[in-house]
Amino acid sequence: MVIVMKPGASDEQIQHVIDLVREFGLKDHPIYGTDRTVIACIGDKRAVDKGAIETAPMVERVVPILAPYKMASTEVKQTRTTIEIGPEKFPVGGNKVGLIAGPCAVESRDQLLRIADAVKDAGAIGLRGGAYKPRTSPYSFQGMQEEGLEILAEAGRNTGLAIVTEVVGVETVDVVAEHADVLQIGARNMQHYPLLEAVGKVGKPVLLKRGLSAQLEEFLLAAEYIINAGNEQVILCERGIRTYEKYVRNTLALAAVPELNERSHLPVVVDPSHGTGHAHLVPAMCRAAIAAGADALIIECHADPEHALSDGAQCLTPAVLSKLTGSLKRIAQAIGREL
Amino acid sequence: MVIVMKPGASDEQIQHVIDLVREFGLKDHPIYGTDRTVIACIGDKRAVDKGAIETAPMVERVVPILAPYKMASTEVKQTRTTIEIGPEKFPVGGNKVGLIAGPCAVESRDQLLRIADAVKDAGAIGLRGGAYKPRTSPYSFQGMQEEGLEILAEAGRNTGLAIVTEVVGVETVDVVAEHADVLQIGARNMQHYPLLEAVGKVGKPVLLKRGLSAQLEEFLLAAEYIINAGNEQVILCERGIRTYEKYVRNTLALAAVPELNERSHLPVVVDPSHGTGHAHLVPAMCRAAIAAGADALIIECHADPEHALSDGAQCLTPAVLSKLTGSLKRIAQAIGREL
Amino acid sequence: MVIVMKPGASDEQIQHVIDLVREFGLKDHPIYGTDRTVIACIGDKRAVDKGAIETAPMVERVVPILAPYKMASTEVKQTRTTIEIGPEKFPVGGNKVGLIAGPCAVESRDQLLRIADAVKDAGAIGLRGGAYKPRTSPYSFQGMQEEGLEILAEAGRNTGLAIVTEVVGVETVDVVAEHADVLQIGARNMQHYPLLEAVGKVGKPVLLKRGLSAQLEEFLLAAEYIINAGNEQVILCERGIRTYEKYVRNTLALAAVPELNERSHLPVVVDPSHGTGHAHLVPAMCRAAIAAGADALIIECHADPEHALSDGAQCLTPAVLSKLTGSLKRIAQAIGREL
Amino acid sequence: MVIVMKPGASDEQIQHVIDLVREFGLKDHPIYGTDRTVIACIGDKRAVDKGAIETAPMVERVVPILAPYKMASTEVKQTRTTIEIGPEKFPVGGNKVGLIAGPCAVESRDQLLRIADAVKDAGAIGLRGGAYKPRTSPYSFQGMQEEGLEILAEAGRNTGLAIVTEVVGVETVDVVAEHADVLQIGARNMQHYPLLEAVGKVGKPVLLKRGLSAQLEEFLLAAEYIINAGNEQVILCERGIRTYEKYVRNTLALAAVPELNERSHLPVVVDPSHGTGHAHLVPAMCRAAIAAGADALIIECHADPEHALSDGAQCLTPAVLSKLTGSLKRIAQAIGREL
Repeated sequence: MVIVMKPGASDEQIQHVIDLVREFGLKDHPIYGTDRTVIACIGDKRAVDKGAIETAPMVERVVPILAPYKMASTEVKQTRTTIEIGPEKFPVGGNKVGLIAGPCAVESRDQLLRIADAVKDAGAIGLRGGAYKPRTSPYSFQGMQEEGLEILAEAGRNTGLAIVTEVVGVETVDVVAEHADVLQIGARNMQHYPLLEAVGKVGKPVLLKRGLSAQLEEFLLAAEYIINAGNEQVILCERGIRTYEKYVRNTLALAAVPELNERSHLPVVVDPSHGTGHAHLVPAMCRAAIAAGADALIIECHADPEHALSDGAQCLTPAVLSKLTGSLKRIAQAIGREL
Repeated sequence: MVIVMKPGASDEQIQHVIDLVREFGLKDHPIYGTDRTVIACIGDKRAVDKGAIETAPMVERVVPILAPYKMASTEVKQTRTTIEIGPEKFPVGGNKVGLIAGPCAVESRDQLLRIADAVKDAGAIGLRGGAYKPRTSPYSFQGMQEEGLEILAEAGRNTGLAIVTEVVGVETVDVVAEHADVLQIGARNMQHYPLLEAVGKVGKPVLLKRGLSAQLEEFLLAAEYIINAGNEQVILCERGIRTYEKYVRNTLALAAVPELNERSHLPVVVDPSHGTGHAHLVPAMCRAAIAAGADALIIECHADPEHALSDGAQCLTPAVLSKLTGSLKRIAQAIGREL
Repeated sequence: MVIVMKPGASDEQIQHVIDLVREFGLKDHPIYGTDRTVIACIGDKRAVDKGAIETAPMVERVVPILAPYKMASTEVKQTRTTIEIGPEKFPVGGNKVGLIAGPCAVESRDQLLRIADAVKDAGAIGLRGGAYKPRTSPYSFQGMQEEGLEILAEAGRNTGLAIVTEVVGVETVDVVAEHADVLQIGARNMQHYPLLEAVGKVGKPVLLKRGLSAQLEEFLLAAEYIINAGNEQVILCERGIRTYEKYVRNTLALAAVPELNERSHLPVVVDPSHGTGHAHLVPAMCRAAIAAGADALIIECHADPEHALSDGAQCLTPAVLSKLTGSLKRIAQAIGREL
Repeated sequence: MVIVMKPGASDEQIQHVIDLVREFGLKDHPIYGTDRTVIACIGDKRAVDKGAIETAPMVERVVPILAPYKMASTEVKQTRTTIEIGPEKFPVGGNKVGLIAGPCAVESRDQLLRIADAVKDAGAIGLRGGAYKPRTSPYSFQGMQEEGLEILAEAGRNTGLAIVTEVVGVETVDVVAEHADVLQIGARNMQHYPLLEAVGKVGKPVLLKRGLSAQLEEFLLAAEYIINAGNEQVILCERGIRTYEKYVRNTLALAAVPELNERSHLPVVVDPSHGTGHAHLVPAMCRAAIAAGADALIIECHADPEHALSDGAQCLTPAVLSKLTGSLKRIAQAIGREL
């Protein structure tokens, strides 16, 4: 932490801040510059609210130096983490790029079993599909819930695909963990800490979506909550952020992929469906995501998007998905990976 | 809903969309313009995912016309809602502007009882203070939890102030409701629907904070979840949004106050502490919020901000708060209200 | 400037950075912490591109400490600047809050002379109106240009109001300066440096609008360009920033007012018309702007908004403006100022 | 345009709006729905300020239907535009993906001639380099100006590379056009209309950078200004937008590439250097940009980034650039193109 004093700070005011720093268990290191005094502070006390020092008289600002996350960080673990998902233990985070696809929501047994087969045929390693749907409006379709989970589990048994499905609250963690292979934390819940702690106590991989307007640091701290609760199998998912742009539902921030790879050892997945919101943009962004270094893609796929009960506008049909995989494979090869 | 076809859409493609519209139970109304065809759709089917129509061939985009919320809306209820809080039934949403103040977190019994007295002396109607703290980092102070609630309740009994405190998960709704007068839903949880539904079943007022990057429509839909679950006592709280600005923790979007007043009958509270993140900006923004039409302010106040366990940088001292109330009263009078 | 090295940086790598720092004429001050080494640099070399150091091996990041502006800053000039505008030398930046109003564009002589009288009657000190209109579309009305300037000057002579009008390019600075009392730099041109330098050579006040997504630092640096070119009469204007919000044309960031007052001695004006984009939000935001400490307001006002050639949606009628001034006066008084 | 009336609008109020619509030369088409009346308007009058109708009593909002640009649009020209740049007429917008590279600024003859050779060796078709530098601070290096242009022209003659350099004001358009092959309009000037019109009168290609927070529609309207002034050779350049993200200088919005390709026939170039601001992110985003469909890349490259006079943090060395081209070629091939 570096504390910048305002110009004109008196010796007493500087000493007062130094006293505060020492009181917090840190070692002070004042530097008297031409324009102002700066107090560098040494010592690792991540838990203290150092912002409080900003309220001391004549403090201009407080600049943190250390990243606040540890276990998610490459500082603590240099080797990349590979997480195996599903009955066939597909590795996410290694040399192979994975494809996870499926409908936004489980709408019926028939719909899901058919799309599962199509997704499998397209070369996917995982099947996504919501049984519990967090919907912006209370009047929208809220998902088939436990029945949906059973259908997903059946599709998983049939196909060998890893079942990826969202858990929307602490009270349904157990039932979701019973049926699914990967527990998804949705973007809206990225900072719902009781839920992060609850999935941190489950022995299954977690796919953590970046919040709608989360900083990377907050995203990694959310992962840290899960790891800190005991579950190291966290897969990060970039799914677009909210910006002023209007032609997309969200702005897919692909530079997050190399940056997360720099800061963290956890695998990174990209969701170009939510990341754009429009089917016509999805193929190009799937290609770009792999080129940027994504470890897997998670894509919405529906046999009849015009009648999808949610997120229809961003679904690919199985035919489009299948055709897309050719160029995805070639791009993976272009960077020395496989799909 | 208005569906805009791309130029060059064929008669069959237009008819296909008309068929879809009819299938969804809406009445179609095609308009053949000079450049393109537009299909206006009549009928109130808020629950259908109309975005799906966007995937039909040659559809350019789908423009929704109706706001998706109802019960929170002035269309359904024209008279403004007043919500009484605390043992002394202070009205929020009437002519009187209320002041709610207190520390970010309950840190000790002594700290809280003293700040409660100071806040009461400054003219507040409510005492805020977190017993459960949703913190970005798992290594930060997480709150005194149930013990904190008991201290808050004691402060409420001593002073008559309405106790406003955050509930962070479904599993703690009951215990919070037992001790607090107003249940606060934090910005991070604005779209945690199981929690919205849970507080919707409690017979106490809810202070719903706007999410960090929530659209007003999403904010009112979150209120709609609570109302729809049975609790009409929802107080909306603007607390700043995430933008590219760096001199503030959040950008306080005060135009939201008159806009929410236009769209909704619910009272609107402003939080200039989180809305700026820096104590030196709080007084000016308190004044501006009242001038913009806020029904109450919720302000962080700590006797010793330099040692606050959280959010120290944005806390006012009781002395500053007390001095501030003079100008707040005069501004309230300037617009025909009272503080 | 503080340079943060990555953990694991070798002695050679640290020494390499120290050598770079010295080469740039700065004094180095390395601090060897528990996790990493930080190199504080002393000396005022604002013009050097210190970001370049970021490319040295094992440098994690470079944190600037000094604000890059000087003459616009309260560090250099502690007393507040008051700028007199128009033939009657109305002071902007003193105790009196000023009102500048008028149409988006000069549309005809008759229109302008009438609105000038109405604006004068409402208590304004300045008349705004565009003769040159920078329009997003080349097909929109582009202004009456020189003829419009002559009409503005005539209105100024008739009423004594200060004429505030935009200059859109270097090539029209002279003609605008001949007819107008205050040269406005529009938001789109805040970083058009040749124009800033050109108005810096004119002996008339400049109203500098904040760019659509400008940081405060960039805003003050744009003012610095004008001052540096020789013109100290710069009035800053907050006019809303681009965010993800949809109910407004821009998000009016009122906390910029107290923050600019903290950092700079220049007067600050607020434009609630562009700052919201909708007439129904303008009155509340005028009140809020004065309460936040604005030195003046600049408001779009049109006798017949339904037929305005530009920006109709955000214009007040003279009747609404006139009615509004009562509450604005009372709010100014509430904070010890006058309107 | 579709006009949405508020619920409860009277027959007179609806008729008043219909009268306005007719007065504007549009054909009205009212639709009386269950909740509210909507008036669809037919006729192409892009220049009218339809927002003005929003101020009529009981109008809720006005929804535009037509895109406001024409000549930049695929509605007017379906075949893709290819623009030949430089003495060797390298096509931008065809099957070949081009590479444009070079330093942020021309710093000396020696520096530039050497980097030009390196860039040529790496397979580039164009050399970028600023002679006039629009710098945020008046105290930063402002470029070598006309001398820099002469050095660039010399480098062009030596290597055959197309010279791409920024023009910062109307007054320097002629001199830049004399020495350069492609005139770059910087992001800060995207809406400086006199400059757009001036380059619209030059017979050389223009590389138009997207403004820092420009909507795609505004971007295409800026192109429309240039085309409308007579120059159809416009190359669009996505260079990152301003968002709340902090680990990047800008957020590179790669979905803009397929969206611009859908809306416009103009070629699209991506600038991953400004689009990220940090050299370690540039290679991955170069790969992603090509995979997303970019027609060319424009990359900052400096032999000694630690001593670059501007933008050092985002420069690649020639060695890194050269190594990068291998994977870029393979990705281009993966999507059926060449580099």
